[in-house]
Order: sequence, then structure tokens, then C-alpha cells
Amino acid sequence: MIVEFHFDFGSPNAYLSHRAIPAIETRTGVTFTYVPVLIGGVFKATGNASPAVTLQGIKNKGEYQQVEMERFLKKHKIADYNSNPFFPVNTLQIMRGAIFAQTQDYYERYIHEIYQHMWCEPKKMDEPEVIRNAFEASGLPSADIFEGMQDTTVKQTLIDNTTRSVEMGSFGSPTFFVDNEIFFGKDKLTDVEDEIINNNKKR
Amino acid sequence: MIVEFHFDFGSPNAYLSHRAIPAIETRTGVTFTYVPVLIGGVFKATGNASPAVTLQGIKNKGEYQQVEMERFLKKHKIADYNSNPFFPVNTLQIMRGAIFAQTQDYYERYIHEIYQHMWCEPKKMDEPEVIRNAFEASGLPSADIFEGMQDTTVKQTLIDNTTRSVEMGSFGSPTFFVDNEIFFGKDKLTDVEDEIINNNKKR
Repeated sequence: MIVEFHFDFGSPNAYLSHRAIPAIETRTGVTFTYVPVLIGGVFKATGNASPAVTLQGIKNKGEYQQVEMERFLKKHKIADYNSNPFFPVNTLQIMRGAIFAQTQDYYERYIHEIYQHMWCEPKKMDEPEVIRNAFEASGLPSADIFEGMQDTTVKQTLIDNTTRSVEMGSFGSPTFFVDNEIFFGKDKLTDVEDEIINNNKKR
Repeated sequence: MIVEFHFDFGSPNAYLSHRAIPAIETRTGVTFTYVPVLIGGVFKATGNASPAVTLQGIKNKGEYQQVEMERFLKKHKIADYNSNPFFPVNTLQIMRGAIFAQTQDYYERYIHEIYQHMWCEPKKMDEPEVIRNAFEASGLPSADIFEGMQDTTVKQTLIDNTTRSVEMGSFGSPTFFVDNEIFFGKDKLTDVEDEIINNNKKR
């Protein structure tokens, strides 16, 4: 069974999903494949926009999203989430870094560490110096990754991932695919888990 | 415990929620209070708009809503839903009728029957003749209800319900309140049920 999580470090709802995923993996025995995509590219290709934009000027809707976020944090016992004061952060460099890290032996650690730098001790992760310091604080090979970010194949893979995501039906973040069945939003993780369980039964 | 369902006959997602509610009532022993509101009024007061408007021009998002609707129909074994070809139907008259019916002994039957006329054998339920024929086909006292719809108190109650709904945090349809805790969308019915169960335990 292939379970994909299409993520961009810049989406808080993708981050919160990332925090809920390990327990689902433990319960189901299935490992999620983390697919780096550029949410800005998804928005551009679909004509969609960030909730930060679409919620503007709508009374009650943003407040409700906040209520749902608090419920999610409580349900999943996430105590160290901090909204990033530099939001929206341009994640192009750190997403290219993720593509490069996939070819190395520290992809999982890269994801964990960058997410920490984005949403636990939030930093302006689109400034080279901030990124470099973050890599170093996390014991990641900064020079290697910065070089990797400039690689033509790395750049193209991120574009291709994003194009493929839209072709598969993406329009926002986070998006999940369980054997090509699409699920959108952190609140659909329960359905993602049910789908995995049902697919497990069929095998 | 007070569990409110703020509904407008014009919202397909409110209708689908209506179909899922009886099983929740059976499982929890709690009865939902159906509160008639004008979704158009909610949109106007909050600056929000119908998904029919907000989804326009966004690739994949409408298709995904359709996937989620199919999943909901399957999960709740709803076989007789039909999208209304006259959508959006101006529901002002039939919502005023609901307010009037609340003062009579056929409120529940009124809701059931009008919903059938909207989303099972869908009709243009904003034309007086269509409404009259529907009332008569359902054995509802047509003349009484049409008279009731013109009542000043009835008209004002619908406005007041809508204002109160927005004050409580509504911005769209369907909206639920479990002892003032707000839940938005048919996909949140699972959380509504969990909240009822938790509140039941506390008593």
C-alpha cells in the first residue's frame, strides 16, 4: 500500500499532520511517504490561495479555524507548537533541501529538524543565514545541502512533484493519498487511517 | 444538553447532515434541536459566500468536494439523494414555513417532507405553486402555512435566528452547537457525536 503525504514546510496544517502521523504509522504498520511539493506552485496551478488570503474579511470563519486548531493540538497532545511570526515563509530553499536530503541518509531527520525550526522555535527560514544556522544547530551538513539546493535535477524534481500532485487532484495543504484515493486536510487523518485499515484487510 | 442544528433547506450539506442525525440521536439518546436560519443572511452578515461561488475557477477543489459527498452518501447508506437542478433555490418562503410549523404539531414532519421535496424528488421550491403542490402532496395544511409565512412574528423570528446564529459563530452551513461548542460541516458530525458522548459522561 502506498500512503503519500504531500507536504510543504510552510503549511501549519501540514506540520500538525506530521505530528499526528507517527501514531497512525504505529497503529497501522504502514509508513507514510513524505513527498515534498511547493504549495505556492499548487495554488498557482489550481487558482487556489492560502487560507491566510481566503479567510480575509470573513467574519467567524478564521475564529473557527482557530478553534479547530486548538482541538487538534489538544487531541494529539501537541504542546510545543508555535505559530511562525514570519508567516508566510518562502520555503523554496528548504523544500529543495528536502529533495536533496531524500538522496542522502538523513531525510527523516531533515524533515523533523526543519519542522522544529519552522513551528516549534519558529525562524525566518527563507534567509540563507537563518537556514545555515538552523542546519548547523541540527547537525545537518550545511555546505552539502546548500550545494544540493542548486542542483538542476533537485530543482526540477520539486517542480515535477508539484505538477504530479496537482495532476493527482491536489489543491491545498495537507493532501494525502492512500493508493491514489485523495484526502484533504488534517481533519481527514481519521479517514486516512480508516482507509489504510480497510486496505490492509483486503490484502 | 442542548444540541442545535442550524439549517436552511437550500444547503445540500445540511440535508445530508439531516440524514445522518437520526442514527446519532439513537446512539446518544440526545435529540437535536432544528433551528431554521437563512444561510443567505449568514453569508451577508459574515462576508462569506456559498461553495457554489467560492469553488468557481479553482481546479480540483470542486471535484474533491464531490468525492467527499460520494463518500458520505456511501458511509451513511443514502441512496435517494438527488442534487437539485434548480440550485440555488430561494428558500425564504419554506424557511418562514419552518418557523411557523414550529408553533404547530407537525414541525418534524414539515422538515422531513420539505427536505424530500428539495433533495430526493427535487423541485423548484421557491415558486408558490410548486410549494403549494408539495405541501398538498405531503398532507400539510397548505393554506395555514401560507398564511403563517406572512406573519410578522414569523418573519422576525427567522431574522432573529439568523442574527443569533452569526453571533454564536456561524459562517456557513451546516453548523452545529453542542452546549455552545461550534462545529462546522457535515464531516464534523463524528466530532459532534464525540462531544455529546463526553458531555453525557460528565453528567
